[in-house]
Amino acid sequence: MNVNKIHGYDYGASNIQVSPVSFEEFQQLKITAGWTADDEASLRLAGEVLSDQTRAIIDHWRRRIIAAIPHLAIHSRSPEGEALPEYAANSGARFERWILDTCLRTDDQDWLNYQHEIALRHMRPKKNQTDGVRSTAFVPFRHIVAFIPVMNETIRPYLAARGHSVTAVERMHSAWTKSIQLQLALWARAYSGPCSTESQW
Amino acid sequence: MNVNKIHGYDYGASNIQVSPVSFEEFQQLKITAGWTADDEASLRLAGEVLSDQTRAIIDHWRRRIIAAIPHLAIHSRSPEGEALPEYAANSGARFERWILDTCLRTDDQDWLNYQHEIALRHMRPKKNQTDGVRSTAFVPFRHIVAFIPVMNETIRPYLAARGHSVTAVERMHSAWTKSIQLQLALWARAYSGPCSTESQW
Repeated sequence: MNVNKIHGYDYGASNIQVSPVSFEEFQQLKITAGWTADDEASLRLAGEVLSDQTRAIIDHWRRRIIAAIPHLAIHSRSPEGEALPEYAANSGARFERWILDTCLRTDDQDWLNYQHEIALRHMRPKKNQTDGVRSTAFVPFRHIVAFIPVMNETIRPYLAARGHSVTAVERMHSAWTKSIQLQLALWARAYSGPCSTESQW
Repeated sequence: MNVNKIHGYDYGASNIQVSPVSFEEFQQLKITAGWTADDEASLRLAGEVLSDQTRAIIDHWRRRIIAAIPHLAIHSRSPEGEALPEYAANSGARFERWILDTCLRTDDQDWLNYQHEIALRHMRPKKNQTDGVRSTAFVPFRHIVAFIPVMNETIRPYLAARGHSVTAVERMHSAWTKSIQLQLALWARAYSGPCSTESQW
């Protein structure tokens, strides 16, 4: 996959705003999630294992699962219910890239910033902006939360597809699920609205 | 465990407010999470398996994990850092009961209402109200999100402790993780603040 050819994929670019989450807050979150050096290594291995399977995984999630759930499928369609092939292709390529970023990127300031950007792109007004489409105004946070177990369960056979031991697959899976939940905690910051003394994020 | 003796455990009581989440919204969430009749049955079995292990599980989470993480431990201590034994005992008993409710309750309107109440009790101003204590004003939502992988990982041996097959344990574990994530989606409603047209919950 040629990163330069993914429309709207702006990881590390100067137009991405600085995350409102501090690096110290992020470090505390990793402690809360029990994140270890072994998770780090296992996630890298997962990245190698998944590197040539990202298209199949995204197709699995989108065509076999999301497409069959009307209240999820609407978020990649026009208000009239029409398919948006270009939007599907571009956001699909970014979705594929996200799998690899989850596994292979270093979680530095660029990482924090892009997590915030990913959340904003599921929210008003950024959701349709990147691709210049008309679709739902936002993906409700609750459905992102609830879809995570589906992603975690369906990715398991892809992690096992390269013949690693049961233990190694289990470790990759554990690291994957922790990383997704940490990302969810970061996305929740965007969904919690502007900074205020009332925020309980 | 005698439910009537758990201080502040008000499941189904008339003083619990109606959840702002509609039953239809909840049904959609279950579809998003891929919830099945098999999950329902596996969660019931998990309830039987865990019924006499809840004290050990809560001790595991609180004494062996939370107590060692200062930014989590503060939420059950006074602002001066003192232990609050009665608070710990009462909230611990409710925490134990929550494990069984997760597995054994029917997810009807009382269920929805109590999920909202549980969230409010981690937030200002309800967090310390039930027990009449002085402690942190709220548990940040992000740390609830990030602690869930720890709960999911550590509960596995307790699910396996009664000699069920690997497949049965895996099913119980899958149903458990889905239920917790569905509850998280409901708790997120409380953390998202008052109803408004701006809400992206």
